[in-house]
Amino acid sequence: MPQVVVDVVLKPEISDPQGQAVLGALGRLGHSGVRSVRQGKHFVLEVDGDPDEAELREIAETLLANPVIEDVELHLPTD
Amino acid sequence: MPQVVVDVVLKPEISDPQGQAVLGALGRLGHSGVRSVRQGKHFVLEVDGDPDEAELREIAETLLANPVIEDVELHLPTD
Repeated sequence: MPQVVVDVVLKPEISDPQGQAVLGALGRLGHSGVRSVRQGKHFVLEVDGDPDEAELREIAETLLANPVIEDVELHLPTD
Repeated sequence: MPQVVVDVVLKPEISDPQGQAVLGALGRLGHSGVRSVRQGKHFVLEVDGDPDEAELREIAETLLANPVIEDVELHLPTD
């Protein structure tokens, strides 16, 4: 069954306290090579038949993300 | 600056109530073509210089995920 990945990420201008917390912990653990961390949501949807991009984008932007503060990245199966 | 994506997903055998909730809502909204939904975490790390895969996998498996119930997918920059 085709899998569609939807990644929901905070818009760049929105502060990301969770990402900041991870970044701080990385520094304390000696991982100094990481400059920034942004945390978002990762959805894997199994769909019937050929994925309908328009419908999936509508699902992503209305149900999976808050378009005011989040951007959506749709990854359709490449095969 | 190189970006590394880390996706953290629940192991298949672990139940996913959040994903189930989304699936239920999709059905009620008339999106019947979606068979399953799994929700996870999506991290975007900006790193200095060439990403060190071993270090990044250690970061992912110790700080970003709970290896008992979660699997990690590392996406290194392809350029």
